[in-house]
Amino acid sequence: MIKKLSLLACAASFVALPLLAQDAKPEYPSPPEIVAKAKAEEWVTIAPSDLLVMDLTPDAKGKALRIIIQLMPAPFSQGWVGNIRKLAAAKWWDGTAVVRVQDNYVAQWGDPTEKKALPEGLVNVSESDYVHPKSLARPRALDGLFVPPNDVSRWTSFHQGFPVAGVGTPDSERNWPTHCYGMVGVGRNLSPDTGTGAELYTVIGHAPRHLDRNIALVGRVIEGIEHLSSLPRGTGPLGFYEKEEDRVPIISMRLGNEIADLPAFEYLSTDSASFAAYADARANRRDPFFITPAGGADICNIPVPVRRQKQ
Amino acid sequence: MIKKLSLLACAASFVALPLLAQDAKPEYPSPPEIVAKAKAEEWVTIAPSDLLVMDLTPDAKGKALRIIIQLMPAPFSQGWVGNIRKLAAAKWWDGTAVVRVQDNYVAQWGDPTEKKALPEGLVNVSESDYVHPKSLARPRALDGLFVPPNDVSRWTSFHQGFPVAGVGTPDSERNWPTHCYGMVGVGRNLSPDTGTGAELYTVIGHAPRHLDRNIALVGRVIEGIEHLSSLPRGTGPLGFYEKEEDRVPIISMRLGNEIADLPAFEYLSTDSASFAAYADARANRRDPFFITPAGGADICNIPVPVRRQKQ
Repeated sequence: MIKKLSLLACAASFVALPLLAQDAKPEYPSPPEIVAKAKAEEWVTIAPSDLLVMDLTPDAKGKALRIIIQLMPAPFSQGWVGNIRKLAAAKWWDGTAVVRVQDNYVAQWGDPTEKKALPEGLVNVSESDYVHPKSLARPRALDGLFVPPNDVSRWTSFHQGFPVAGVGTPDSERNWPTHCYGMVGVGRNLSPDTGTGAELYTVIGHAPRHLDRNIALVGRVIEGIEHLSSLPRGTGPLGFYEKEEDRVPIISMRLGNEIADLPAFEYLSTDSASFAAYADARANRRDPFFITPAGGADICNIPVPVRRQKQ
Repeated sequence: MIKKLSLLACAASFVALPLLAQDAKPEYPSPPEIVAKAKAEEWVTIAPSDLLVMDLTPDAKGKALRIIIQLMPAPFSQGWVGNIRKLAAAKWWDGTAVVRVQDNYVAQWGDPTEKKALPEGLVNVSESDYVHPKSLARPRALDGLFVPPNDVSRWTSFHQGFPVAGVGTPDSERNWPTHCYGMVGVGRNLSPDTGTGAELYTVIGHAPRHLDRNIALVGRVIEGIEHLSSLPRGTGPLGFYEKEEDRVPIISMRLGNEIADLPAFEYLSTDSASFAAYADARANRRDPFFITPAGGADICNIPVPVRRQKQ
């Protein structure tokens, strides 16, 4: 381990820091230390049927490339999520490809020919479903941490483990999931088209929050995003791959309950005390590397901890 | 060009949209359209001596991998920037390597042995230099666009083409550059060490704003960041490469005025009317793809346009 270089790394997350543990006794635990000490009952198991498993063609060294997506829970985007379940059941994505990788923006996949027939029974979802029109429960313990500050008229928070934003007073509230790193959304044509769910993308750069309320978000990558974020950037306009051989073929995409031996996953409940402590530590870093706590954090700089469940 | 898939792409930046130009006459120009129409005098030439040119070992196909960094202008971080000029003059980085790539965080480079002697004359910069302690001119035309909203006590804006943040009243103001995508910073040991500038990193994920005021920022990547952001992620703790052969060797790093035939670069003045219109369009997308303007933008979601100067 390279000490000097690694110490910038103290700013990072989700990794224990053995050097520090030996050298100093921090007064404040780091975010990963808080997560490591969370109680078993603060973790929420994700149902395998709510996972979408995408296997890309192995890389040049023969390494398997698996990306695991957690589908968006109700009340958000359920029309598109239902379509995605049907598309996976129909094995529709098998033989499609990653067609676009634009730096600091998105990696996108689907049928490059755009001529592949869609399965029967997909619904045409309304634009009004980009937002949820009713008041949403959220953990008030977090309210003070966010930049911008939460208030009645405009807020960010978490709901069932997903980052969300909202506007309006409680009796006329509207809320929606937010485009953070790793979130998965639905490509579409111009309005009023809303997309079917057959063309999907994931965010691989700074949160493009201008897409919120303009495109459906249907989930997030919980494992393997590096297989998408480290792909070569497309050299065509908007990061599209210009040659067929540049595209990355998708072997299959299935719901998790159809995959043998898939590990179980769990996320840290965003309503838990440990999550509140973790979010506070992300917003106000006081572990030994830090000098000046930020005094707040962007919703997308508080990634929800997700891990493989211990056997 | 794949129409359906490409239309999500309308949300992207800096690329003309020929399909739309044929199909519809937008009432509102998109951010790239505004940039394309900026006047020649709104662009600011970057002095070659303010560029740092890093050449990595060519990729497997023999393609040259050049990364161009614009060094931070005064009043920020000038002690470290001076060290970096000395390190480049001493050819100190030649033969060093990219040693760490952590997904959604940073790519970092320097001497893997940490034993290479530093050149004479580097200064030891004080922690107080993470911030600039005097009032800073900034374009007030932008004030209404930012999320969080700018006010006297806490604001974000741009200064000489770089994203900045500040706190305090005008007579006791403190301000600093912000950790947006592509910004370049100085690795360091635990406080009070501030780093020399020999170990550098660039942000390749969502803005880690908790590093602001805790680490020196010394510039930003203006071309070629995809050569760092698409590198394989390190499999060791914090994204360090575990094997020597995984590291990406640096052939050389030089100031721009020492590179033959380097193109000239320019950025869109952040004090210009076109930049204000561009920033407004980023914060409130109204071009045809969009339904609901966001009503504001994070400072790091308004990347400053930089381009090669026309010959």
